Amino acid sequence: MRYDIAIYNGTIITVDDQFKIIENGLICVAADRIVRIGPMPGNGPLPDAKRTIDAEGGIILPGLVNTHTHLPMTLFRGLADDLPLKQWLEDVIFPAEAAHMTPENVRIGTSLACAEMMLSGTTTCCDGYFLEDEVAQTVADSGLRGVLGQGVMDFAAPGIGDPGDAIAVAERFAVKWRARSPLIRPSVFCHSLYACSAGTLTAAKRMADKHGLLFQIHVAETRTENENIREQHRTSPVGYLDRLGLIGPNCLLVHCVWIDDADMAVIAERKAAVSHNPESNMKLAAGIAPLTRMHTAGVTVGIGTDGCASNNTLDLFQAMDITAKLHKVHDMDSTAADARTIIRMATRDGARAIGMEAEIGSLEVGKKADLIIIDVRQPHLVPMYHPVSHAVYAAKGSDVNTVIIDGRLVIENSALVHLDMLEIMRRANSVAKIIAQKDIPQWS
Amino acid sequence: MRYDIAIYNGTIITVDDQFKIIENGLICVAADRIVRIGPMPGNGPLPDAKRTIDAEGGIILPGLVNTHTHLPMTLFRGLADDLPLKQWLEDVIFPAEAAHMTPENVRIGTSLACAEMMLSGTTTCCDGYFLEDEVAQTVADSGLRGVLGQGVMDFAAPGIGDPGDAIAVAERFAVKWRARSPLIRPSVFCHSLYACSAGTLTAAKRMADKHGLLFQIHVAETRTENENIREQHRTSPVGYLDRLGLIGPNCLLVHCVWIDDADMAVIAERKAAVSHNPESNMKLAAGIAPLTRMHTAGVTVGIGTDGCASNNTLDLFQAMDITAKLHKVHDMDSTAADARTIIRMATRDGARAIGMEAEIGSLEVGKKADLIIIDVRQPHLVPMYHPVSHAVYAAKGSDVNTVIIDGRLVIENSALVHLDMLEIMRRANSVAKIIAQKDIPQWS
Repeated sequence: MRYDIAIYNGTIITVDDQFKIIENGLICVAADRIVRIGPMPGNGPLPDAKRTIDAEGGIILPGLVNTHTHLPMTLFRGLADDLPLKQWLEDVIFPAEAAHMTPENVRIGTSLACAEMMLSGTTTCCDGYFLEDEVAQTVADSGLRGVLGQGVMDFAAPGIGDPGDAIAVAERFAVKWRARSPLIRPSVFCHSLYACSAGTLTAAKRMADKHGLLFQIHVAETRTENENIREQHRTSPVGYLDRLGLIGPNCLLVHCVWIDDADMAVIAERKAAVSHNPESNMKLAAGIAPLTRMHTAGVTVGIGTDGCASNNTLDLFQAMDITAKLHKVHDMDSTAADARTIIRMATRDGARAIGMEAEIGSLEVGKKADLIIIDVRQPHLVPMYHPVSHAVYAAKGSDVNTVIIDGRLVIENSALVHLDMLEIMRRANSVAKIIAQKDIPQWS
Repeated sequence: MRYDIAIYNGTIITVDDQFKIIENGLICVAADRIVRIGPMPGNGPLPDAKRTIDAEGGIILPGLVNTHTHLPMTLFRGLADDLPLKQWLEDVIFPAEAAHMTPENVRIGTSLACAEMMLSGTTTCCDGYFLEDEVAQTVADSGLRGVLGQGVMDFAAPGIGDPGDAIAVAERFAVKWRARSPLIRPSVFCHSLYACSAGTLTAAKRMADKHGLLFQIHVAETRTENENIREQHRTSPVGYLDRLGLIGPNCLLVHCVWIDDADMAVIAERKAAVSHNPESNMKLAAGIAPLTRMHTAGVTVGIGTDGCASNNTLDLFQAMDITAKLHKVHDMDSTAADARTIIRMATRDGARAIGMEAEIGSLEVGKKADLIIIDVRQPHLVPMYHPVSHAVYAAKGSDVNTVIIDGRLVIENSALVHLDMLEIMRRANSVAKIIAQKDIPQWS
């Protein structure tokens, strides 16, 4: 058979059940699927393919899965840092959103995020925001894969003047996007326990279940949230959600910093999953989620960057390195959060957490062709003893030189193939000039 | 006057006393010094210079100062990770050093480190290792600036068969290099309290004082070290050093994870400084140094990466970002370790910590021309509201496109000007092949 793409001369980290590593591997793609993977046959010619890609000794990984983003917020990258959380949110971020998150700016910020993510090796994101219809169109156009959640909360938000309409808007979004693009899966994103009433949470979850959607929610992010929920409801944030009957296999619980062993048991029992966002939790001083204990309890945990206003980068390679280091020192155990565990979190466990493990997250025959190549011909990637360690502790997002999503080459020679990067940046800078006129607090 | 170099069209973060930021700035260099700095004069022509550099809207920073390295250990990057500290050190690193750290391999590993550091914006390193004469020649040849400490301890080490010779070797090194290159300052590096007797420490410090050298030592890195010293000497590691009379203004105390308020008061009182190595301390699960309390106590703290066997990167941009985030979550205060503080630590405070603040660490007339330019024309650096925040939370080492050290352009268009990168990598890979034959533990 003639393949569409054949990739050779790289070390493949499959992230399959055996965590198989294939030196001098070969991967062949037909349409949007991986149809062959294994060692390069000795001495024979390359298989017949429309396009052959020489990985030049690099590392071939499943595309990374970012389990928590707010894509349009790239426009607020660095708008305010080093502030108390309440002041950051109420004095800067909320007013900036109210003033600037028009449909056009949502598209501009999203296209900037897609460019940044693809350039740094992310092939799938799980997003929650408002005006998500604009986000979805932009993500689909960019060539990135996304599980995209229209936001629901009991306050006005971009595109939702009357909060009473929020669930209807989310349902229309879900119906519109359920089969519109092979790259997009709709989802529902309830903001949080403090921004949604029990009625809203229940109605949104029921709608998610009806349409088979992923139900995302920020839970147990800050100490304040934990204390308030415990005071109001006499149980933990996770306990409260569970009492409402809302935790199930289609739930992605984002943050879970303030959870205890009973919460973890509930999450594992209900087969829900967690999105761990260490950089955001560190930068906003929310706390450190108990990763090792979640793993021991059998909870599936993916890695997220969170939005650009609270990180300030979408680079999952950086997130992998920090996740590993943070939990070693948090546990005071240098064997904690080892490189294999971290790679699995950023690929296969992330895919499972957002309900997509059947399609993506590992390099195996029959899965979608979402993969990346790390160019190791650089001083900071020499020498290479262990490709898995290398990918976590030495590689950076900028080392990704090739990205394929859904069988389509979107990054080649470290550059965007289909998108006009200069135009994307020019438009984002134009919006930022307007934002900067009124929203920058005294800072430095 | 005709300048050697004129740099224009960038935002300058001076890190001077006022932490002045100059938009659309101009810096002029004559020989090895900054001779002019300020806003670009309106409408006039560019000043006459042999070489003009357009920063293209980028951020111009003092070159970064890495206050703790073991340069040749790039050869062990990723050789062993995720192991218990004792096993990592005794089963892998020590045997690998004994077997492979020949003079030639020290040069090969050092040149790889110099390439990696310059490419990621570091212009000065403070190193401690053995066979430091080889390190010094390689650093000088590479064009990097270094304060380089010949190692002293009571055990055999590369180049020192009889530990009784260690101080004499260190003194010969100091005499040889005291005026040999404008880029190199010799130093003494006593390994640690557990590897050096009181007699060795005292004699090494006396020698350092006699020649006006920086005295470097690993102190209070691990819980075990802290407990052992307290049991043996009834005081803390810092207290023990001070009781020996060895803490003074020429002391760089590396790590200081396990220190208390009394220790900090001593360090501040003696005008010694600390090298903080958060990534190494996290990865080896040593602990978290009390950065904010050190600052409150008036201690000068620089940032270090530590050697590549325990990090595994020499990228100070990554170290800056992690330092900021780690201490916010450690203090549970999002205003801790703000971006200005972090930039100052990685430049001016680092320079002060290694005794070089008179020459480097800020962009001011009369200082050495050590500076870098961050290329902001990339999606992850758009938009830019605050250059200081941007440099800490958004920029990566790979975004540095221009580096000048001692008035000499060493990185241009993100590439090494004078060094053959492919040859450096080829030689390092050759050595690694031999190392890999016997020293790789079962790992993944």
